[in-house]
Amino acid sequence: MTPHRWVMEEPGTPLVRVEFDLQEPSSNEVIVEVAGCGVCHTDLGFFYGGVRTKHALPLALGHEISGRVVKTGEDAAAWQDKAVIIPAVIPCGSCDLCDRGRGTICRGQKSPGIDMHGGFATHIAVPSAGLCAIDTERLADVGMELADASVIADALTTPYQAILQAELEAGDLAVVIGVGGVGGYAVQISSAKGATVVAIDVDQAKLDQLEGHGASLRINATEVQGRDVRDAIRQFAKDNDLRQTEWKIFECSGTATGQNTAFGLMTYGSCLSVVGFTMDKVEVRLSNLMAFHARALGNWGCLPEHYPDALELVLTGKVSMLPFIERHPLSQINEIFARAHDGQLTRRAILVPDASH
Amino acid sequence: MTPHRWVMEEPGTPLVRVEFDLQEPSSNEVIVEVAGCGVCHTDLGFFYGGVRTKHALPLALGHEISGRVVKTGEDAAAWQDKAVIIPAVIPCGSCDLCDRGRGTICRGQKSPGIDMHGGFATHIAVPSAGLCAIDTERLADVGMELADASVIADALTTPYQAILQAELEAGDLAVVIGVGGVGGYAVQISSAKGATVVAIDVDQAKLDQLEGHGASLRINATEVQGRDVRDAIRQFAKDNDLRQTEWKIFECSGTATGQNTAFGLMTYGSCLSVVGFTMDKVEVRLSNLMAFHARALGNWGCLPEHYPDALELVLTGKVSMLPFIERHPLSQINEIFARAHDGQLTRRAILVPDASH
Repeated sequence: MTPHRWVMEEPGTPLVRVEFDLQEPSSNEVIVEVAGCGVCHTDLGFFYGGVRTKHALPLALGHEISGRVVKTGEDAAAWQDKAVIIPAVIPCGSCDLCDRGRGTICRGQKSPGIDMHGGFATHIAVPSAGLCAIDTERLADVGMELADASVIADALTTPYQAILQAELEAGDLAVVIGVGGVGGYAVQISSAKGATVVAIDVDQAKLDQLEGHGASLRINATEVQGRDVRDAIRQFAKDNDLRQTEWKIFECSGTATGQNTAFGLMTYGSCLSVVGFTMDKVEVRLSNLMAFHARALGNWGCLPEHYPDALELVLTGKVSMLPFIERHPLSQINEIFARAHDGQLTRRAILVPDASH
Repeated sequence: MTPHRWVMEEPGTPLVRVEFDLQEPSSNEVIVEVAGCGVCHTDLGFFYGGVRTKHALPLALGHEISGRVVKTGEDAAAWQDKAVIIPAVIPCGSCDLCDRGRGTICRGQKSPGIDMHGGFATHIAVPSAGLCAIDTERLADVGMELADASVIADALTTPYQAILQAELEAGDLAVVIGVGGVGGYAVQISSAKGATVVAIDVDQAKLDQLEGHGASLRINATEVQGRDVRDAIRQFAKDNDLRQTEWKIFECSGTATGQNTAFGLMTYGSCLSVVGFTMDKVEVRLSNLMAFHARALGNWGCLPEHYPDALELVLTGKVSMLPFIERHPLSQINEIFARAHDGQLTRRAILVPDASH
């Protein structure tokens, strides 16, 4: 397979296939042969939404990447031939912030498809620091191929870190707003950790998909709105002997409407996790944080050190991925971007390099 | 002195002196002879701002109280004759939330002057749980009378808990917005904990007052605004070898303008503490919490268990109170409320029951 990547030359104009020569990796780098790369709303934001990449164009997008290491620099030799997930946010690993465990705000961090060429390609060069090794036999045991694991980077690990930060515990009531590609995993992970989960979305199909995957109460926000949402959750909590305080709310829709709903559900001791991103502002009574002794937490990606634990949820079958993903040939990237943008995909698309191209 | 309290019969109409008979305390209760009670903006909110008390009117306001225990119930006998600070928020101490250390959101909590008669009185009956004993000899060593310690409840302990929650550490850059009765202590406590502190206010007199009390940089928000505030702090951080990330921001003004300034100063890894209260909403890009991996924390009062440590800052001279307080006779309560409301007081007023009334 000739090494190539699909690059964005300008937002909105078709992505272009560009061949390149594989370079020798530098001492701490590896070359990964891409097994698959998930299509995230962040990619669509760059392509359709006018969000700017940090690296100049042309640039290959794609930051949810799994694959196999095919070349290593001298200090990364241990990674040769390993199956890996590449973290969506790769901290430098050597600055003061990294030393203090604050790698997600490391100012030298690199994200494939944002700071450097990404995973919509046959190969990618990345630092070895932070790579997450995968046991492909165990992956096969849960019916998954290496390509499928790509989505663990970002779509699964970002809510995973949000859930860690929110200190979610067994017995908690979790509310997930927006249960698409990211929020669906927020539901599953919360449930796996022993919380009872309320899922809220405007799309009934997405809610239905989560039946049997951890969402005990599913609220269609086109039918139930405003105070009625809160009342429905209060009643549900009452019926299920759950607390009326300390709800853990995960805003994953990345919309102003979703954020307003999330803020309005805040109760005494609540933790509101802002997982989805929108440029839109919202008008909120910030002092409610004080009146409710509540907190609002953001998180940027997920520290690589948490990837193995997040992966373990998948390998042990506690989190299901197969019903929520679908593979497509990388050569169809322009069509898949368009379909994802138009909301025609009910599952997260994974682009798999096709041998014939 | 005939037991009496000054009660609010209706918001805005003069407070009225009402005599009462001292009751026998119930088994877990004590009767405290009030030494002093601080006038907080919360009291003014009830009296002028239409904020509703939880207890029906007529009600004595006042929740910053120090005094001496003069009667005890049978299970509270150990408190007899002790000098104490009464917590502004008194958790019930026996519910599930209290058991889990979440007393500030205890649904059975009581606040003097909100849920029960408060401290603008000669005597007050309160649960003994949570009382903070004071060594009046040590208090005298720093030039203070028992009445002066009243302000520790709320004005000092609320920012104290906010600073604990924000995990403020030596070497941090703290930004305090609104340096009046509460924010001034946020400045002093932050400085005592080894942070370098930037104070922001619209009132130059309040900023000047904090010179020599922990505010290394003082910004008058009527002169420096918008991005210039951020730029000034960045330059200050640079000049003082402080981080450009993880600023700890304490919003103590309780105004929408202050909250907007606070939100706008958020940087990578920041912690924004919402200490002041306003009913006003603000329009913010909530997703900045995600983009900056930042957090916004509210806190309601302060757990009684933290009072001794907060008091210790005063007793060891690390936090100065005398320059920021002034005593007035309780009988002048109506005049003092009016002057406080009109912004004529530069120090926090403490009302002291006067023997002749």
